[in-house]
Amino acid sequence: MSDTGVTVKKCQDFSEWYVQVVLKAELADYAPVKGCMIIRPDAYAVWEKIQEIVNQKIKATGHRNAYFPMFIPEAFLKSEAEHFAGFTPEVAWITMGGDTPLEEKLAVRPTSETIMYSMYAKWIRSWRDLPLKINQWCNIVRWETKATRLFLRTREFLWQEGHTAHATAEEADAEVMWALNMYKDVVENYLAIPVVLGTKSDSEKFAGANYTTALESIMPDGKALQMGTSHNLGQHFAKVFDVKYIGEDKQDHYVWQTSWGITTRLIGAMIMVHGDDKGLIMPPKVAPIQVVIVPIPFKGLEAEAIAAKTKEIQDSLRAKCISVTLDDRTEYTPGWKFNQWELKGVPLRIEIGPRDIKNGQCVMVRRDNGQKAFVKNEDIIATAEKLLGDIQDSMLEKARAILADKTTLVATYDEFKQVVEGKGGFIKAAWCNSPECEAKIKEETGATIRIRPFQKEEAHTGCVYCGKEAKEVVYFARSY
Amino acid sequence: MSDTGVTVKKCQDFSEWYVQVVLKAELADYAPVKGCMIIRPDAYAVWEKIQEIVNQKIKATGHRNAYFPMFIPEAFLKSEAEHFAGFTPEVAWITMGGDTPLEEKLAVRPTSETIMYSMYAKWIRSWRDLPLKINQWCNIVRWETKATRLFLRTREFLWQEGHTAHATAEEADAEVMWALNMYKDVVENYLAIPVVLGTKSDSEKFAGANYTTALESIMPDGKALQMGTSHNLGQHFAKVFDVKYIGEDKQDHYVWQTSWGITTRLIGAMIMVHGDDKGLIMPPKVAPIQVVIVPIPFKGLEAEAIAAKTKEIQDSLRAKCISVTLDDRTEYTPGWKFNQWELKGVPLRIEIGPRDIKNGQCVMVRRDNGQKAFVKNEDIIATAEKLLGDIQDSMLEKARAILADKTTLVATYDEFKQVVEGKGGFIKAAWCNSPECEAKIKEETGATIRIRPFQKEEAHTGCVYCGKEAKEVVYFARSY
Repeated sequence: MSDTGVTVKKCQDFSEWYVQVVLKAELADYAPVKGCMIIRPDAYAVWEKIQEIVNQKIKATGHRNAYFPMFIPEAFLKSEAEHFAGFTPEVAWITMGGDTPLEEKLAVRPTSETIMYSMYAKWIRSWRDLPLKINQWCNIVRWETKATRLFLRTREFLWQEGHTAHATAEEADAEVMWALNMYKDVVENYLAIPVVLGTKSDSEKFAGANYTTALESIMPDGKALQMGTSHNLGQHFAKVFDVKYIGEDKQDHYVWQTSWGITTRLIGAMIMVHGDDKGLIMPPKVAPIQVVIVPIPFKGLEAEAIAAKTKEIQDSLRAKCISVTLDDRTEYTPGWKFNQWELKGVPLRIEIGPRDIKNGQCVMVRRDNGQKAFVKNEDIIATAEKLLGDIQDSMLEKARAILADKTTLVATYDEFKQVVEGKGGFIKAAWCNSPECEAKIKEETGATIRIRPFQKEEAHTGCVYCGKEAKEVVYFARSY
Repeated sequence: MSDTGVTVKKCQDFSEWYVQVVLKAELADYAPVKGCMIIRPDAYAVWEKIQEIVNQKIKATGHRNAYFPMFIPEAFLKSEAEHFAGFTPEVAWITMGGDTPLEEKLAVRPTSETIMYSMYAKWIRSWRDLPLKINQWCNIVRWETKATRLFLRTREFLWQEGHTAHATAEEADAEVMWALNMYKDVVENYLAIPVVLGTKSDSEKFAGANYTTALESIMPDGKALQMGTSHNLGQHFAKVFDVKYIGEDKQDHYVWQTSWGITTRLIGAMIMVHGDDKGLIMPPKVAPIQVVIVPIPFKGLEAEAIAAKTKEIQDSLRAKCISVTLDDRTEYTPGWKFNQWELKGVPLRIEIGPRDIKNGQCVMVRRDNGQKAFVKNEDIIATAEKLLGDIQDSMLEKARAILADKTTLVATYDEFKQVVEGKGGFIKAAWCNSPECEAKIKEETGATIRIRPFQKEEAHTGCVYCGKEAKEVVYFARSY
């Protein structure tokens, strides 16, 4: 086990634990290209689940998928000044096609607003063409210079980006919130990660947006991770790319736009939040394998009975659309298999040995809490279904408790600094809304405003930095 | 209609007809980046259907999806000499990250053998790890210098690439044929395009393969289009990247490999093969909208009855998993809608007007042949289902007849040249197997060997070029 299992404890060396889980559970690997990763099948299957869930939700609400080129002319990026300033430092540039230098260098998309909206300008003619709601699943490149972290910080990653155009500001506002709540549903109810919703401060918003809303959560090491964003772009890009429509009033109007996205970093969050010292724990709703059946080998008559029984359970679970693997490989021992499937985070294990055959039962073991139960033959399918639901629920509950524990309300800047250097997590503090205090806090502590929550709390103190009148209580944290 | 409908006949100016259908049916658009295209929602939905069908088939046979970086170090491409020579002329190169020149320029993947197999070398240890069967859906870049053709020739396109490693040459052979036949099923039974299966000549095979198998078809303008390829890579890449496994015999062995792919050009083929002077005709099995319901507006009591009836039909069809749109927009006339949905190729139209309400019926119109039928209320759902099946079948039959018509067996080189310059299509001719005759024919006529069919025919003449003893009958054509 020592060479294949995780050799450090999550609470001792979180960062090393994370890398070991990702590599040993075969979720991802470092690529031979600096800063890049390979998303291996078990993790890609989680991404496919996320795609399936998001596609179902966006299509049911009239959004449609499309594909735009990944090459963006430099002039396009430059056309919206804030956008250009925000993205160019980390753009990868194509300068040669074959042996020929290009006349204008091309950016590999760091995001697709500019290329998409140049087409929206052409496609949108009248109010009849609105709203236009297009989504794209694709790869994105941002030339990071900081250390690579599998799933969390790589030069290429996968995402979806929704881009909509509306006739009114109100519709765009509603779309921003629709996307944000859709993400909340995906992240909390499928990935079992609780999030805090709100807006970003001006210094943290998307380059080119009116305002940015986001979902933030806290990882077990106390650092915040942004789980998704939904931007109201106002008419900034519409004016740059001349995206106009003729209204029912026969007049020209600029459209109102939104964009929103989630990325493969969600898989990293899932690993960090739920894993334990044995490895990964997959939330049942996104697990590529939900149940593994391990026969306990035995010679003689029981061997046949065990083989028949495990096969029967596999078929019955499949008939219920439960994803199940029967691990009847003979070259490995049951103990080796238990460790292996625990490392890979399969939510539920079913064991069947000679004694179980005799007693008309099986053994079920929950991955999340290790609980073991004997289950009568007639109850196996119903119990498996129930346990998968229970596991999903208790994973979210457990994560909620941890998030609550890692959220601290502070009254003074001393307390603030103590928490930043100590347990970390979200630090709720009163803020006067001045960018200067925000910048000073960042400079002195490394903590930024992660979110200005929609659920407002009354400030009972002055601004945590300057002491002047506070406008709101916001969430600070150091972040990924 | 003149501005929105197709203004040239398919038989008169095929190339202009194709562009008009693609643009006016809103399947794709030219991007503001030279050589690139946008795949718009109606075409992307077809690609999603293809993904769904292929994913189902590859997963059922133990293949798994993953994602590898799109950046490939120059040294990797260079490591297999033939491969490098085959691809470098059309590679797009990344030379800058942000403001910093890269130490080694990076290719944007023209195909992923090298980057994938460098990882296979690490992941494969023993016979227990084989076969390794991984597939990837991604974007691909080949810096074409010839004129852009939407879906058919663009600098970026989408594809899937399967990459497998096996313990024996026999298993790899079987995998190559499995993939090829899987593609045949997808292309013939879903896209309704008949294909010829066989191998490529050495001069046309994949750069780095032992041999290449392919599916070829003929487009209405008489040019051949490659619909998919499946390569046996032998041990070429295994030796370059040191992909070895320890066998049950405890010895080191190189693996045997295959790779296979289909691309978004299949959508172009579907448009070309099935469209007519009114626009696109979608095969029902991949149509994003299978049935459109158009109410014939009327005032008075019938209006309500029509609204209720069309809604009821929509619900009943949806319950049968038929994709249906009820076009009850009031700003367009029925005639405008008929033209619009015909342009977009929806396979079946249902019309309901006041007379139909009175007679307890509806009108159904097939897109493929324009046949119109009155269908009694009680038969609507069953008839719609049956007609969709019939349309799918007759589209394939019709395409088969055209392919047969565009396939000509020739005995002499004069005949050969006559057909090349005349009707085009597949030219079946005897060949002596010499690359010199193949090259001469290409030079003199522009026709290449598209396929050496698996279904062998006896050669009754000598080689069509040199007259010497023929080894086989092969299919020549000019191609896309």
